[in-house]
Amino acid sequence: MSSRVNRRVTLRDIAEATNVSVMTVSNVVNGKSQFVSSATRQKVDAAIKKLKYVPSATSRKLRSSQEFSIGMIIMDEAPVFLADPFIGQLVAGLSNHLSTNNYSLTVQGVRPESFQRASLFSVAGTDALCAILCGPKAERRKNVDFMLGRHQPVVIFQDSLDIKASGIAIVNQDDEKGGYEITSHVISRGAKKLLFVRPLVQWPAIEKRLKGVKKAIARKKGVTLEILKCEESTFEKTQEALAEYLAVTKVPDAILGGTDAMAIAAMRYCQDQGYKVPEDIMVTGFNGFSASSYSTPSLTTIVSPAYEMGQLAGQLILDRLRTGRFSARKTLLPVSFKQGGSA
Amino acid sequence: MSSRVNRRVTLRDIAEATNVSVMTVSNVVNGKSQFVSSATRQKVDAAIKKLKYVPSATSRKLRSSQEFSIGMIIMDEAPVFLADPFIGQLVAGLSNHLSTNNYSLTVQGVRPESFQRASLFSVAGTDALCAILCGPKAERRKNVDFMLGRHQPVVIFQDSLDIKASGIAIVNQDDEKGGYEITSHVISRGAKKLLFVRPLVQWPAIEKRLKGVKKAIARKKGVTLEILKCEESTFEKTQEALAEYLAVTKVPDAILGGTDAMAIAAMRYCQDQGYKVPEDIMVTGFNGFSASSYSTPSLTTIVSPAYEMGQLAGQLILDRLRTGRFSARKTLLPVSFKQGGSA
Repeated sequence: MSSRVNRRVTLRDIAEATNVSVMTVSNVVNGKSQFVSSATRQKVDAAIKKLKYVPSATSRKLRSSQEFSIGMIIMDEAPVFLADPFIGQLVAGLSNHLSTNNYSLTVQGVRPESFQRASLFSVAGTDALCAILCGPKAERRKNVDFMLGRHQPVVIFQDSLDIKASGIAIVNQDDEKGGYEITSHVISRGAKKLLFVRPLVQWPAIEKRLKGVKKAIARKKGVTLEILKCEESTFEKTQEALAEYLAVTKVPDAILGGTDAMAIAAMRYCQDQGYKVPEDIMVTGFNGFSASSYSTPSLTTIVSPAYEMGQLAGQLILDRLRTGRFSARKTLLPVSFKQGGSA
Repeated sequence: MSSRVNRRVTLRDIAEATNVSVMTVSNVVNGKSQFVSSATRQKVDAAIKKLKYVPSATSRKLRSSQEFSIGMIIMDEAPVFLADPFIGQLVAGLSNHLSTNNYSLTVQGVRPESFQRASLFSVAGTDALCAILCGPKAERRKNVDFMLGRHQPVVIFQDSLDIKASGIAIVNQDDEKGGYEITSHVISRGAKKLLFVRPLVQWPAIEKRLKGVKKAIARKKGVTLEILKCEESTFEKTQEALAEYLAVTKVPDAILGGTDAMAIAAMRYCQDQGYKVPEDIMVTGFNGFSASSYSTPSLTTIVSPAYEMGQLAGQLILDRLRTGRFSARKTLLPVSFKQGGSA
């Protein structure tokens, strides 16, 4: 008697509308599409969209033995994706928050070109998906759409995409403000010729940092910016790129590292060439994890709340699974300035 | 007609022997014990032991939708367990090998006292378990027995336990040889008074390193060793412990860091006190990841094959799931000496 408007759309409704079994619909919804033909899957997907089916955490748990698990996928060119301290801290924060609430975390690193073939999407039974994406905007949007097509809530980190779908939340730190602050700092100490050292690959967070750098420069007459792209953000590749650059260009007053690792590689190279840091060249980093204290002088940098971002994402996801909606679609966590000896 | 000896023991055999349903046996075998009463579980466990039931990867896959997943549990006092570069690299190697073979990896960090309550054991559907354990030998053995009781293959890293059970494999790097080599190096450069700086918590790998250190010292007359335990292996705690030590003791000729992070913290402290490294004090590390190049001078250290250990474990597990036995029960990967400027 109750009209469809007044009650939640169920798997059974989808099954009836598409003339397939409830189990088949369940397989599609739970991402076990290896058991379903592509034609059937498209039919079910269309019905899900039309009837506005929203997976409910409670009914998923009663129905499926694959619950209590969140997937985290990290798009990276480097196979040692977890060795990046930013990723390591973020994943630890996420994992710990989920563990405390009896959820497990499945992690996978994947090269950009293999993203949609990641086994996490086909074999792991997850309730929700998290991701850090890189690459051009259009590519990232395609990959977000792909994740949303798994009919699971999605949280992405450090991304600038503007997405209308209610199934996604974005957790960012204020990279732009960080870039602005650290640049204003070196300008206030007299730097006029700045060099921003960045990885070649398009990380949205790096673009935001650069946006902040440019904003600070625009506010002060006579300050110039050059940008040096390094093929990889490893110690050696950063030093090679800098060596090539300095072979043909006058040394800058300040080198702004896209990350702490790149900053310290640049600093060590300049010191090896006989320059004094910060007297001859200032150097700044970005992230502020413990290794930023390893160099002499220690790094002036922007501290990232990476662990907190992971925790927050865990909280958003669990709330979403419980209530059916994200309590916040976009979150921007503050960064903080850390004075070291390098600038 | 076939006698039990000639065929594989199945879930049905266990169910018949214990007078419970096959589903109940399956729940016990697959670690879904939250669905099974404790008395029933004990009965089933006893029958599994008596009938020598070995879970088969193939039948698990046909029977359960929870397969293709390996669990990795990291016992650590520190919540940011993944920020340790050793752990990060190891987990990346494991995850990448599993991904390539369409297995996913579920990771969880857990404090020592909460190990057996880790949600990974109760909620995640895994085919095999990996772990890094710390603490006293008896405790580690208890926790290994607990994992073996999940009726899944187990791989542990960096452990010295001597375990007879065929369901477990141990993957180590040659920490003892690393400790021996780096100590012989500083002795050959004239160091007589050595200080080994280590975390308070008992990591089997640290004990092995120390064993190697002592072996090298025993070979040379007139060389002495003191050991400084730091409450935590963070930068600040290491420096605090060293400050207290040096307030009452003559500076050593060489400081041997249990890890790179501890070594660099010690080096920076000594430099801040006006000592020259390596002229006044030599300093060495252990692990050799990229951050060992951040200091000035760069660290003389032992390079750990952490990524390779993770990969190897993945290979061992997948072989075990396919063939029913481990191709190697104990593996010892070589470490290598890396000459830096600090010793």
